[in-house]
Amino acid sequence: MEELSKRVLAGDIRAASRLIRNLEDQIPDTYVAIKELFTATGNSHIVGITGAPGAGKSTLIDELIAAYRKKEKTVGVLAVDPTSPFTGGAILGDRIRMLRHAEDSGVFVRSLATRGSMGGLSKAVGEAIHVVEASGKEKVIVETCGVGQQEVDIINHAHTVVVVLVPGMGDDVQAIKAGLMEIADIFVINKADRDGANKLYQELLNIASLSRNGDTASSEQWTIPVMKVESIAEPLKFAESVNLLCDKIEEHYQYLVKSKLLSNRLRRKTTAELNEALWGSILQPILQELNDGGEMESMVEKLVNKEIDPYTLAEQVAQRYVKK
Amino acid sequence: MEELSKRVLAGDIRAASRLIRNLEDQIPDTYVAIKELFTATGNSHIVGITGAPGAGKSTLIDELIAAYRKKEKTVGVLAVDPTSPFTGGAILGDRIRMLRHAEDSGVFVRSLATRGSMGGLSKAVGEAIHVVEASGKEKVIVETCGVGQQEVDIINHAHTVVVVLVPGMGDDVQAIKAGLMEIADIFVINKADRDGANKLYQELLNIASLSRNGDTASSEQWTIPVMKVESIAEPLKFAESVNLLCDKIEEHYQYLVKSKLLSNRLRRKTTAELNEALWGSILQPILQELNDGGEMESMVEKLVNKEIDPYTLAEQVAQRYVKK
Repeated sequence: MEELSKRVLAGDIRAASRLIRNLEDQIPDTYVAIKELFTATGNSHIVGITGAPGAGKSTLIDELIAAYRKKEKTVGVLAVDPTSPFTGGAILGDRIRMLRHAEDSGVFVRSLATRGSMGGLSKAVGEAIHVVEASGKEKVIVETCGVGQQEVDIINHAHTVVVVLVPGMGDDVQAIKAGLMEIADIFVINKADRDGANKLYQELLNIASLSRNGDTASSEQWTIPVMKVESIAEPLKFAESVNLLCDKIEEHYQYLVKSKLLSNRLRRKTTAELNEALWGSILQPILQELNDGGEMESMVEKLVNKEIDPYTLAEQVAQRYVKK
Repeated sequence: MEELSKRVLAGDIRAASRLIRNLEDQIPDTYVAIKELFTATGNSHIVGITGAPGAGKSTLIDELIAAYRKKEKTVGVLAVDPTSPFTGGAILGDRIRMLRHAEDSGVFVRSLATRGSMGGLSKAVGEAIHVVEASGKEKVIVETCGVGQQEVDIINHAHTVVVVLVPGMGDDVQAIKAGLMEIADIFVINKADRDGANKLYQELLNIASLSRNGDTASSEQWTIPVMKVESIAEPLKFAESVNLLCDKIEEHYQYLVKSKLLSNRLRRKTTAELNEALWGSILQPILQELNDGGEMESMVEKLVNKEIDPYTLAEQVAQRYVKK
């Protein structure tokens, strides 16, 4: 395991990939390697990209990788979106398109399976980010999908949050208002040649002007920009608009650094990581033991037969495991 | 608290509402009331309704309530969707429309705030379902949004899962394939007068024919039906198509009962509840103590300063709290 972490620190992509797989599979001793990496983390810019299914996030990210490579930045991508081509959820054509970065050692792309409920996924994401950071990638893009609490948990690992929308998705803007407005740093209208793009643009400008983005303590204000990205059907315009987005993401990072808000984001990120580590050290091993010993199954049986209620049962288990 | 549970068991809607609010706010002693209710649960049909933001789920549910009331069934609705009018995430017009059931004591509508990460939300949903069941509602509709793991966790509380789609959402069908195909019992195409409805219908029929819906142990097979719901712009057609959906949901329940698959679903549901109760009895009180004592904050500080890594720190906390 120490060998593995040394290889990750040396920038070995295959070692990083294997370590992330071990994390997902919850291989014992993986934490020996992860701990070794911890001091090498915290130097990358973590960019969260989220939006509804079908918003074209992966096409956008593919081009964003190219934009970063032109600036000679190394890039890691972690795709958590179950609908993303990275995660194998989608069509072959998209996956083939991604391959253009496959031979570039400055690019690391990895999907995370949406396994493990009760916080396990967000935990795996936080740890995978550490691995990618430690492997020396300057920009780490985390792709998630949707507006639920879990997506918000995951996005808490990011410094800069980009929310991608497409015109014509109806009440979607309402979703953003409700779920993502507090965490969005940049809005992107993808497929901006579609009908309704201007209406969406106006709506988002309104939202952006209302939002104070959580960091009200600072006198320096970041006004959420609304960026338009052209259809991929016009490759040159598409690349150009993604380049502008890339610059805007960098501008946000510089703003975080200058306004000292970066440490706020770091604290938010660290709190999320600690909560997840506590889950992994306290609850997860107990659940594992109950499952392995077949006790979980017999408890479920008792509950189904209404011999006991789940709260009393859980309290009994807690008394066995938790010190008073 | 015992008083409160007695009132819930007598069908008092205000008591049910208060108990759910107490659960959300994690008021101590709430479990005294919840335990009292447990033996009165398990008799309702739990219907999960999920889909992307903008799929028109709440309009559909509003009409579904009316359809159930015509059949003289009592109905509870728990809305977990952050974009739902029930949860206050959306525009006033929608909320007013919902009010038509406000005076009907056979209908109970309640939103659940998307608070509480790390499994807390799904736990609150499971408990709120118990309260609504205990208050005597025969049908309990749980509305969620999206395709993430958390939505799947929540939907595990349901007997029948309805997935709502609208034409023209692009790769959305891919999302369904990846995220929800395993759990869908009924597909609904909402706003079926829109362009692309027939294409979506064909795609869903293909998916439905491939799916075996997880319950492959049974010889009796449920073929996932694809139902079309007309636009609300034509109220009569809309009501008629929702009536057909209502019948189909009932048909699925009868299928579960006859094929003895209901007990499989019950086991899945009970396992989810037990996992969440264990989280509530074991991890949650520890996190609470760490937060209240300010220790969480000082641990975050140590991590930010890289004095220790989160895994070692979490293990130290585990050693203090967990019996070996």
